[in-house]
Amino acid sequence: MGLDSNFSPQKRTSSLPTTVAKGRHSSGRGGPPRGRQIQKTFNNIKITILCGFVTILVLRGTIGVNLSSSESDAVNQNLIEETNRILAEIRSDSDPTDPAQPERDLFLNETYALGPRISSWDSDRKIWLENNPEFPNFVSRNRPRVLLLSGSPPNPCDNAIGDHYLLKAIKNKIDYCRLHGIEIVYNMAHLDRELAGYWAKLPMIRRLMLSHPEVEWIWWMDSDALFTDMVFEIPFEKYKEYNMVIHGYPDLFYDQKSWIALNTGSFLLRNCQWTLDLLDTWAPMGPKGPIREEAGKVVTKFLNGRPDFEADDQSALIYLLLTQKEKWMDKVHIENSYYLHGFWTGLVDTYEDLMAKYQPGYGDQRWPFVTHFVGCKPCGSYADYPVERCLRSMERAFNFADNQVLNLYGFGHRGLLSPKIKRKRNETVSPLEYVDKFDIRRSSSDGTSRLSR
Amino acid sequence: MGLDSNFSPQKRTSSLPTTVAKGRHSSGRGGPPRGRQIQKTFNNIKITILCGFVTILVLRGTIGVNLSSSESDAVNQNLIEETNRILAEIRSDSDPTDPAQPERDLFLNETYALGPRISSWDSDRKIWLENNPEFPNFVSRNRPRVLLLSGSPPNPCDNAIGDHYLLKAIKNKIDYCRLHGIEIVYNMAHLDRELAGYWAKLPMIRRLMLSHPEVEWIWWMDSDALFTDMVFEIPFEKYKEYNMVIHGYPDLFYDQKSWIALNTGSFLLRNCQWTLDLLDTWAPMGPKGPIREEAGKVVTKFLNGRPDFEADDQSALIYLLLTQKEKWMDKVHIENSYYLHGFWTGLVDTYEDLMAKYQPGYGDQRWPFVTHFVGCKPCGSYADYPVERCLRSMERAFNFADNQVLNLYGFGHRGLLSPKIKRKRNETVSPLEYVDKFDIRRSSSDGTSRLSR
Repeated sequence: MGLDSNFSPQKRTSSLPTTVAKGRHSSGRGGPPRGRQIQKTFNNIKITILCGFVTILVLRGTIGVNLSSSESDAVNQNLIEETNRILAEIRSDSDPTDPAQPERDLFLNETYALGPRISSWDSDRKIWLENNPEFPNFVSRNRPRVLLLSGSPPNPCDNAIGDHYLLKAIKNKIDYCRLHGIEIVYNMAHLDRELAGYWAKLPMIRRLMLSHPEVEWIWWMDSDALFTDMVFEIPFEKYKEYNMVIHGYPDLFYDQKSWIALNTGSFLLRNCQWTLDLLDTWAPMGPKGPIREEAGKVVTKFLNGRPDFEADDQSALIYLLLTQKEKWMDKVHIENSYYLHGFWTGLVDTYEDLMAKYQPGYGDQRWPFVTHFVGCKPCGSYADYPVERCLRSMERAFNFADNQVLNLYGFGHRGLLSPKIKRKRNETVSPLEYVDKFDIRRSSSDGTSRLSR
Repeated sequence: MGLDSNFSPQKRTSSLPTTVAKGRHSSGRGGPPRGRQIQKTFNNIKITILCGFVTILVLRGTIGVNLSSSESDAVNQNLIEETNRILAEIRSDSDPTDPAQPERDLFLNETYALGPRISSWDSDRKIWLENNPEFPNFVSRNRPRVLLLSGSPPNPCDNAIGDHYLLKAIKNKIDYCRLHGIEIVYNMAHLDRELAGYWAKLPMIRRLMLSHPEVEWIWWMDSDALFTDMVFEIPFEKYKEYNMVIHGYPDLFYDQKSWIALNTGSFLLRNCQWTLDLLDTWAPMGPKGPIREEAGKVVTKFLNGRPDFEADDQSALIYLLLTQKEKWMDKVHIENSYYLHGFWTGLVDTYEDLMAKYQPGYGDQRWPFVTHFVGCKPCGSYADYPVERCLRSMERAFNFADNQVLNLYGFGHRGLLSPKIKRKRNETVSPLEYVDKFDIRRSSSDGTSRLSR
């Protein structure tokens, strides 16, 4: 508001004359009525002018602030309007040649399908691998070929800062995957409009499996999950007999039927027939609209602690695995010996302690593998936690991880909240010594961790 | 502004009384002075109250609008303030234990150095490669190991949409590099505060060379450059005798000494002693402050068409290569047979024509390899082109490229401006046929392009 803080009506009006100046027309004893009339008119004019003056002053205080806004504010405003306009146009479906796909009105007795049923995937894939030795399903002796899948919606985030953290999160994933020979697919398209939102991963997983027979494991990771142990590697030999690896707690799962017994923010699926069958069984609870609503009620009733809302993929999976446990659970490994998914609230404030006591490579509470910012929703508007806490925590996790990458280059962040970095080692004419000492890939390949803090 | 648009001082004051009501104290003929005094006082009180009333009404009109703004506006405003506050805190250098690095006050006779001079890199690296056969400098028979380096500043963009396009640009690079077995480093830190901005690539290139002896070529690509030919591969065999590959025009370079004869938005440097020497010669024009200013004047004077501003890395490189051409140019390949860098203005409107006539794999004007959005600066505030034109064009380039990736999965964008995708092929029970037909990596590995439109 443009008013001067000292402004008060009383002060202003105290400058108004309290006496009428005596003039030629002032009435004397028994002055003429006409003079009195003039006097009154004059008084009223004064009132009018003064009130108008006060009003204009007040108005000017308000308008004046806007008029004197800096040129750069105007430029920014212009920029924002231009941006919004073009984005609105971009977002509108402007292809006239392609009729809009009609909304599918599925009823509960018509089952949604991800695609035509494939039943010979294991043998088909085996033959393909034999015919294509240049695309093996392993990258080295012990290491299967893994593809990390993540993604975010095609449109800009509701909250401006959201895209910045999506960018940092994908950089984080690029770093981990480069160090460990994992390919990345970052999906920004909805393959199936019915399965949008958290369900969008299902059609994409299936699509990647069928298009990349050389990939042995597909690893889904949420965009709000960060790698925080750059050394730790998933112990794939442990999962020879399994087709799904997911973080969770068996007692929460089997005994309590908790809706958060497992976490679908970071999990692995083997590229095989079993997985296609699981996806086919899982997906029908997902189509948005009445089906997803109804499924939501079913899972809320069945699972413990679940609020009432439409079916999410995680609840649906837990429900499916519990109600058909004999069919699926022999091939599902519920993992909690390391943080394949690590819920952020208990982890982010411990980083400095961990840096003092431990070193990367443990993957567990000593050095969490993945820190997952469940509920922060930096890309959306309605987070479950205060924005400040989330942003701070994500910044800390990002820098905690980035330090482990920069270590090879001799740098580290000035603090876990600082984007600035500082040298940890002087430059040298023999840089290869440090490569031998600090390159994470070397510690992976020979099994020992050489990364020093 | 909260004022009612119908408000005008005149209208309000017209409701003010124009006559003074006659009352017991009104002066009659020859009324007592005391009565007159009371009358005047009463008039003044009226003036005060009325002006105060008017003022309050005006104020309320202003305040009232703010009070009645929707709850969501308040939430958003809160969110923005929270975000800005935490970001300001994050950006402040808050590590008390590390004294701020003093500003280096370099004079023109003191040469800035990226690091201590290394003079035996070729032999050191050769020995290291022999001792580390698990990290060869090639990925297959004909293909050297390449590392793509890109990056953006550590802080959010000035313009909210900037981060969204940085995200899309890195996804674009992830896709190309996955298809062609190239590693990515996405740098979001300033290794050297003196060489910030466009110069920041120099210390990072050097750092990566020395830390990754297994990498044969470092490929710098600007964050505003997109791959638009997902099939084309750099013909590395052509560059056996060269150490630098950069897009440009020999006549503009040698004859016209144009400041845009070469483009440092996308170029390759071999990991060798020659490159270390070039970087050592190039960098000293970069330190911000008087040196960069002075260097700017020198290059403006020497090069044709250059405006007057501080030295940028591109002008400095052209200047250096021209003034020392005998030393460097035998190892520099000025490439323009394909768009290692493709200036966007002449390309983005041709995509539909190209799609009608050609197919990916040419890399040249028939299907540009890289479309580079020079001057668009989506992350900053001051672009050289209208925002709308830039955003539209970047969206088109992104989708043009994305279509080539989605082709394997049977999808494509509804239009080059649309984030939505549609099926191009029906689902099938024999997906492996399409893998054989559409997987870009297969066309790369056997040299023929099988990608159909």
